[in-house]
This record gives sequence, C-alpha cells and structure tokens, in this order.
Amino acid sequence: MHLVTGGAGLIGINLVDRLLSRGEIVIALDNLVRGRETYLRRFAGRPGFRFAQVDCADLAALRRALAEVAAPGQIREVWHLAANSDIPAGVAEPSVDHRNTFLTTFNILIAMRELEIHVIRFSSSSSIYGEFGDRIIEEDSGPLRPISNYGAMKLASEAQISAALESFLRRADIFRFPNVVGIPATHGVIYDFVAKLRRAGDRLDVLGDGSQCKPYIHVDELVEAMLFIADRANDRLNVFNIAPPDDGVTVRYIAETVRDIVAPAAEIRYGSGDRGWVGDVPKFRYSTARLDRLGWRPKLTSADAVSRAAREIAAQRHGE
Amino acid sequence: MHLVTGGAGLIGINLVDRLLSRGEIVIALDNLVRGRETYLRRFAGRPGFRFAQVDCADLAALRRALAEVAAPGQIREVWHLAANSDIPAGVAEPSVDHRNTFLTTFNILIAMRELEIHVIRFSSSSSIYGEFGDRIIEEDSGPLRPISNYGAMKLASEAQISAALESFLRRADIFRFPNVVGIPATHGVIYDFVAKLRRAGDRLDVLGDGSQCKPYIHVDELVEAMLFIADRANDRLNVFNIAPPDDGVTVRYIAETVRDIVAPAAEIRYGSGDRGWVGDVPKFRYSTARLDRLGWRPKLTSADAVSRAAREIAAQRHGE
Repeated sequence: MHLVTGGAGLIGINLVDRLLSRGEIVIALDNLVRGRETYLRRFAGRPGFRFAQVDCADLAALRRALAEVAAPGQIREVWHLAANSDIPAGVAEPSVDHRNTFLTTFNILIAMRELEIHVIRFSSSSSIYGEFGDRIIEEDSGPLRPISNYGAMKLASEAQISAALESFLRRADIFRFPNVVGIPATHGVIYDFVAKLRRAGDRLDVLGDGSQCKPYIHVDELVEAMLFIADRANDRLNVFNIAPPDDGVTVRYIAETVRDIVAPAAEIRYGSGDRGWVGDVPKFRYSTARLDRLGWRPKLTSADAVSRAAREIAAQRHGE
Repeated sequence: MHLVTGGAGLIGINLVDRLLSRGEIVIALDNLVRGRETYLRRFAGRPGFRFAQVDCADLAALRRALAEVAAPGQIREVWHLAANSDIPAGVAEPSVDHRNTFLTTFNILIAMRELEIHVIRFSSSSSIYGEFGDRIIEEDSGPLRPISNYGAMKLASEAQISAALESFLRRADIFRFPNVVGIPATHGVIYDFVAKLRRAGDRLDVLGDGSQCKPYIHVDELVEAMLFIADRANDRLNVFNIAPPDDGVTVRYIAETVRDIVAPAAEIRYGSGDRGWVGDVPKFRYSTARLDRLGWRPKLTSADAVSRAAREIAAQRHGE
C-alpha cells in the first residue's frame, strides 16, 4: 500500500493514476488548498483508491487521518509530495515554507517512524542548489546555497530525511527537478498566462524582460522517471536530478506559445530585469548523467514539454 | 551594539567577554536551560552588558525581550549561538532540534528583518557534512548528508540564512566547527567524565570502545577565530571551517587525560563499537585551508585543547 501526500496536486494526480494502473492500493492525502477534490473524480470507482483531506503540517490531524485510512503495517511506502508550491508567497512570508514545505516533511517522518514505514520517496527541487552560474549542477555538487525560502525548506527536508536514514528509515529516494508542467494545472507560468489571456484577450503582461531561461519537465515524464528510480535504484539513499536534456526555454518562448494557442492576436508586453521575483534563479544547468546511467532519459525537450502543456492547459476545463 | 543568543553558554560567555573587552555594548539572550545565570556574574558591573532570559524558539517572547533591551536601530549585528547542544537528545526526539536548533534561527531571522538588522554571525557545525570517510571536508564539499537531527537542523539554519541573504540580510558569517571544549563547561565528554569520576572515583565507564577519533577546539581559540573572520572576511556570505590542525584525539586519550587529573587510580572500562550513539560521526577530516588563507591558524592541537580543558573543567566550581 502506497501513501501519496499532496495527492490532489499536479504530480500527485498523475502519480496516483500510474500507481493504480499498476494494481497498487493508494491512499492520497491532500489539504485541498491547491490540489482540488474535482481532480480526484477520475479515480471514482477505481479499486484501491482512498482519499483523506488533511493538512500534513498538522501532526495530530495527520495521525488521525492515517489511523482512519489504514491499519498498522499496511502502508509500505510514502511518496511525499505535499509542499508549498507558490515560491513567491514563501519569499514574502517565510512561515509559508516553514509550515507547508518543511513541517509536512518533518511530520510525515514522525508518522512513518510511529507506523514503522521505512521507505520514503521525496519530491525535492532544483532550488536547493542556488545559483551555480555556468557550472553544471550534479547531485553531489556543493556548496548548497538556496536563494528562496522554498529552496531552503526543501534542503531542510532532505537533511531531515538524511538524518532519519540513520535511525528508522531504510530507503529514501530524492527527486530534484525543475518546473513541472502538465495537467491538472493548479498554478505556474503557463497557467497564469492562459488565465491572463482569458481575462484580457488583447494583451499579455509578462514579469521580467522575457529572457529568463529555465528547463521545464512534463509531469508525465517526471512521474515516469520517479517510478523508474523507485524500481531500479538500489542504494539506501538515491538522489537524482530529473530534467529535460537541454538548458531550457525562455519566458518569451512560453509567452509566445501560450499566446499563439489562446489568443493569437494578443500583444505581449515585457517588464524589465532577468528574474520575475526575489529568490527566482535566473538560469541554471543541470546534469542528468546519473539518471542516464541508471537507464532513463526524457523524450521531451523543455520546448516540447511547454508546448504540450500549453495545449493541455488551454483545453483544461475547471475541475478536469 | 551586538546581540548574542545563547549568551550564557560555553561559547557565548567567552564571546561576550571578548566583545565587552573591545568596548562593545552587548546584549546576551539565553533561556538558561544549559547556560547558567551564575556564569553571567562575571559581567556584573562591566559597562555595556545587558541580559534577558528568553527562549528564542518563542517568537512572541523574543520580540518582547528585544523591545525591552534595545531601542529600534541600536542592534547592528547578531551572533546567533542559541541551539540544542545535546545531540543524543535530538536523536531520540526530533522535535528537540527542530525547536531549539532550527526555530531559534528561523525566529532570529524574522526578528532581524523586523528590526532591520542586516548582519548575522552563525555557529554552525561540522555535523552538517555527514560521513565523508577519508575524504577531506572543505567548505564547498558535497553532498551534504547529515546523520543527526542536530546536523540536519544546523544545515536547515544555514539554508534559511542563505535565502535571507537574497532578501534583507547584507552579510552572513557561518562558522562550522567540531566539538568545543573549555569553561564554563555545561556538558560534553570531558564534563561527563569529570562528573562520573567525582561520583565513583574508582572507575570510569566509557560508551564505545574508545577508538572514536575527533578534533576538538578550545573555546578560546574558537572565539578568536570567529572574531578574526568577522573582522577580516569580506564577502556577503563567509563560510569557514574552524578546527585544530590535526585529525583529532581518541576517546581513550580523553578518558586517560581526565582520569589522570581527577582520579589517577581509577580503572577505565570501555564498551563496544566505534560510536557512542546513533547519529555520531565516528571520524572525519576537516580542511581549514580557507581560514589559513585568511590569515588565522590555531595554536592548540586537539590533544592540547583537551588537556587544557580537562584541567580547567576539573578546577571549575559550580557557578564559576
């Protein structure tokens, strides 16, 4: 039996879907702040699916929810995806990431120790690295100097998991990935651009000068890679960068792609500066050689992922 | 005006003493759980010294204390030393280090932002690195895989400081050091051995087989190095290993040194295994080349530091 926290979010929905297709019993937890209950409708009637609305940052509530959805010893592994995903919100108010990004991990580890669950698979982030300039970032690279509270609390989560491996944990997989795109989208640059163009079809205002360049991975490929690592990696601690095989695409590319799909006649207006908000890393390069050696590589480039996600998000109806 | 958190602990007392000698005004904060008020008596009558008993993990209490001891704009820099220092206690119960090691840092940063204090100097730890085996640990080494909750929450603190440098902080000095010895001692292996021999003068029971080897720095030299870095380093973020110029001394050496001072006739009995408790790193090697390049190097070896501290602690009267 698998437990998926953040199970009603973008990655959670797609992961739960894949796990159910494998015949697994899956318990999804979500506080339904960004994740949406309507997204879960697709699992209605599928055998093995259970859901509980709970905020993992509330340890007492988490304990109660787990006691209700599973008998002791049933849950064998935890996919811990629950986190704040609004990085600018966490820059303005550090307690957002302390609570939603770190305490969720801290509490899940406490609950796992109590329930004797020994395997965690954790969605970390490229943001733990900070700015490496032109250096290519490998999993063992240092120093780690996150520049957002989100990145800081993802690194804190990794550190807490690392320490737990010395006590009760037997295995931890840590997935470090950049921006994820796809459906059901709840937030993010493509989602925002689609929404802006729906509100005012004649123009699209973009934060920054559009030159900001980042890799984007499609959620389908991300989930495929996570499952591949879970199946194939063999260490106690398996840390993997997961990213497309390129340096990314610019905000300008994303704006034009979304504009062409949603409102081809709209004018795009850019701001100034190479980053949208404090704590945003303007450019980075990721090594995925470790994942390549394990035997997995993405088929979609960042441009492919963005184009596909833009079409999917534009076609997404509320609650889909 | 300097603020020193953990100001009644081993490092705090010695740092406050040095800062006062420089003519600085110093506010010491301490929850007096391990730090002791009696240690502060030495500052009675010295101009520029202020003290407030407060738990920095309680943000409301911290804000009240700071409002009482200083007018807005007076405090120019913070020496943040407050933390759990009982690593085994944090292994048994993760909330100890979350609260006392991480939340203290998290709250101090919130208070600093509110009071527009832009300089922090932070006592981090060699425990953030985890086990590097025979590799020599430099400040930029990776991966960082702490094996204790204490190390995890020190790394989390560094990460939060790193993110704060992107918003309101202008300068952060991060000191990473191993075990510190000296007086006033509140805990630690020498302190424990002295206490055990005082209780039962005929024998000394040692956890582990005595082969565990670690570097020890004397508090006088540590404080000297911290002040040197504060005075001489010039980057926004200055991360320095501070350690003696050797691989350390064994627990056996410490046991024999303390025995010879306190109860020369006592028998030393060893346990088994190369570490005293889960989360303890059995051996590590530290590079201090960066600090050497800055122009500071320790005069005492680990053996010197332990021998001197053993004599000091044996001569220490309660409340001294």
